[in-house]
Amino acid sequence: MRKVNVGVIGFGTIGTGVVRALKERRSLIAKRSGIDLVLKKICDKDLSRRRGFSVKNALLTRDYQDITNDESIDIIVELVGGIHPAKEIIIEALKKGKHVVTANKALLAEYGQELFKLAFRLKKNIYFEASVGGGIPIIQSLREGLISNRFEAIYGIVNGTSNFILTQMCEKSVSFKEALVEAQKRGFAEKKPTLDIEGFDSAHKLVVLTQLAFGKFVRLEDVFVEGISRISLDDIKYATEMGLVIKLLAIVKNEKDELELRVHPTLIPEGHLLASVDGAFNAIYVASDMVGDLLLYGPGAGQNPTASSVVSDIVSLAEKLDIDGNSQQFNFVQSPHIRRLRKIDQISTRFYIRFMAIDKPGVLAKIAGILGKYGISIASVSQKERRRARIVPVVIITHEARERSMRLALERINKLAIVRESVAIRMEET
Amino acid sequence: MRKVNVGVIGFGTIGTGVVRALKERRSLIAKRSGIDLVLKKICDKDLSRRRGFSVKNALLTRDYQDITNDESIDIIVELVGGIHPAKEIIIEALKKGKHVVTANKALLAEYGQELFKLAFRLKKNIYFEASVGGGIPIIQSLREGLISNRFEAIYGIVNGTSNFILTQMCEKSVSFKEALVEAQKRGFAEKKPTLDIEGFDSAHKLVVLTQLAFGKFVRLEDVFVEGISRISLDDIKYATEMGLVIKLLAIVKNEKDELELRVHPTLIPEGHLLASVDGAFNAIYVASDMVGDLLLYGPGAGQNPTASSVVSDIVSLAEKLDIDGNSQQFNFVQSPHIRRLRKIDQISTRFYIRFMAIDKPGVLAKIAGILGKYGISIASVSQKERRRARIVPVVIITHEARERSMRLALERINKLAIVRESVAIRMEET
Repeated sequence: MRKVNVGVIGFGTIGTGVVRALKERRSLIAKRSGIDLVLKKICDKDLSRRRGFSVKNALLTRDYQDITNDESIDIIVELVGGIHPAKEIIIEALKKGKHVVTANKALLAEYGQELFKLAFRLKKNIYFEASVGGGIPIIQSLREGLISNRFEAIYGIVNGTSNFILTQMCEKSVSFKEALVEAQKRGFAEKKPTLDIEGFDSAHKLVVLTQLAFGKFVRLEDVFVEGISRISLDDIKYATEMGLVIKLLAIVKNEKDELELRVHPTLIPEGHLLASVDGAFNAIYVASDMVGDLLLYGPGAGQNPTASSVVSDIVSLAEKLDIDGNSQQFNFVQSPHIRRLRKIDQISTRFYIRFMAIDKPGVLAKIAGILGKYGISIASVSQKERRRARIVPVVIITHEARERSMRLALERINKLAIVRESVAIRMEET
Repeated sequence: MRKVNVGVIGFGTIGTGVVRALKERRSLIAKRSGIDLVLKKICDKDLSRRRGFSVKNALLTRDYQDITNDESIDIIVELVGGIHPAKEIIIEALKKGKHVVTANKALLAEYGQELFKLAFRLKKNIYFEASVGGGIPIIQSLREGLISNRFEAIYGIVNGTSNFILTQMCEKSVSFKEALVEAQKRGFAEKKPTLDIEGFDSAHKLVVLTQLAFGKFVRLEDVFVEGISRISLDDIKYATEMGLVIKLLAIVKNEKDELELRVHPTLIPEGHLLASVDGAFNAIYVASDMVGDLLLYGPGAGQNPTASSVVSDIVSLAEKLDIDGNSQQFNFVQSPHIRRLRKIDQISTRFYIRFMAIDKPGVLAKIAGILGKYGISIASVSQKERRRARIVPVVIITHEARERSMRLALERINKLAIVRESVAIRMEET
């Protein structure tokens, strides 16, 4: 049986899951794939921490160059996370003739172009199944399962923390803050949750998905990002009344060969499959020209699901290695179709808008008048009853409207003395 | 760029989609995969039919041996369907040193063991993504994405015809027959729909999935099969009232290293993701030990989705070919874990039972008495009101009960003079 030697750099949560799987499932994997994966070395700065199982001392090192310099190693798994030294490790590994497996979405979002181009030049591959959607085989599906497809759009719930919080708010009728605390208690949110709740983690993953599906390198700055921290329980309740659900979606759409890239809370119909994705789960909806609609759902994080994806990358790479250690390469086609990226101002969606307005005659006429002036037409209005309240919520659903028009209209409306607050949430029907 | 030569046998609906994709997307596929797929020959008995695009005459043949005997061809695509001569074509192709791609679930369900063993002995692969779930990359996900996982259960909506009919009944409040006619009108059901509506097509697919996931060759006869033709609109309505949905599920479960294999109409909670799978769509729910819950959803049939899966198999095989035309092989591990297959009588589920009974005192006591005698305990009962009716429906939900006990109890109950009809539908909570 063919042996393929593997080195793991980063022996934290995911690394521990990967090492355990390589140890305990070596024979299962060998039987299924015909490849004997040999774990040659593990690197981490902290070698004293307990991992729940024993690893031979000879396998362990604190110096990652013990792995990148080991000529017998074919595949290096980078699970250090963060930008530095993860980037340097991957570059060195590629230059030393190794293929690379990584779960590092932040690095791929920021330096993907540089890394993938280097890998391509050196005839090596970087595989990254675990960087998006945890245990969901979304990357392989896009890269191989749908290889003959042109992609039209991807809608993803790719941040489990945010989805858990929104689900809690909806099911338990609690505020954003209470739901966040609960998420932190259960280990679904970090102490500093900004990356997750403000949409940046989703944006990282969106960049990775976009590069793969649309063959275009995009930057984080090309993604419009809005998080969920300003979503109120009221808006969730009004949405529910209208048969809608609020999800933090990462969206990329090809509209007439222009790409839209955005992450924001989004109202979708409750009958939509993405609306049923609850708790810390992830799901990615892909529209492509041959297959049509495809949805993949599963755990977006966690030691074992993520380790499962890392190991599947190792096997996939190993299967493709020839005797010289080279392999067929997936190429990020620079799509000649994509003419440009749309700025957020040029994008159109339907909107849910909630105004807190003083309850007196003529309020609605004033608001509607301004919307009309900016070419925004109203699909429905409801004034939510509040007993003896001086300030009442007015909820408006618009037809499709330009972002720029909406922004300008809201600026005008917010200046009205009768309006105390306004909230706008984009809608998607797909 | 490496060239890989492909021959297509069977130029019908799917074959036409495959040939079109290979023609029109050759450069897209080559850019992405680094492999130039060359369509060398196409075989069909009927070469005169219009396919909507032109194919060079030199490519066409009526004799499949022109393809199996062509030494330059690396991969043969079998899209003839049915058992004969599809089986002979695949055997001949393997013996002549070709890898094989097929969409033929009936053949794989019946002769998979023989074919896969032959392929393994000859160091060739048979790929079959298109045999289950049309455009959904379920086979690759099980084979590669989840390669380090042990599987616990698979629940699939894998027959679009049945799912379309059940969805129509539910949404339009029409009878099974009316829904079937509508499905036939729209091209979702064949004139002779038995294979689809009686569950046999789902059983074929279940056998294919089971072999792959559980590493055990099973026969069609090992699958308990019950179709949807006896599902009444009343049962769908009562289910809806209880927050349940009826789906035709193909189920394989590993219960203490014993496999359960069954296809039957199943009541599931409306909040379950599978409950939202409507119309002709398919979805496969997979529970495995590292990833946990995974669901893949997409089109279960159709020319382009199925062709997409076939082409992805061709590329996956091509990527793994070495210069001798051999490749790494997926092996169906004969799982030493699976001790035996459970017969349907030994399986336990919860049940929905509906009796049509004469409306007089003591009816329920009699029915409940018999159920109790067979150790079946009742979770809830409701007698559906029917104005001035002499015969009324009584709906009972049981706790988990053995199939055998249920069968015997129903036999007894059906003999009661007060009972005119009984219907039992299994439930799953997962």
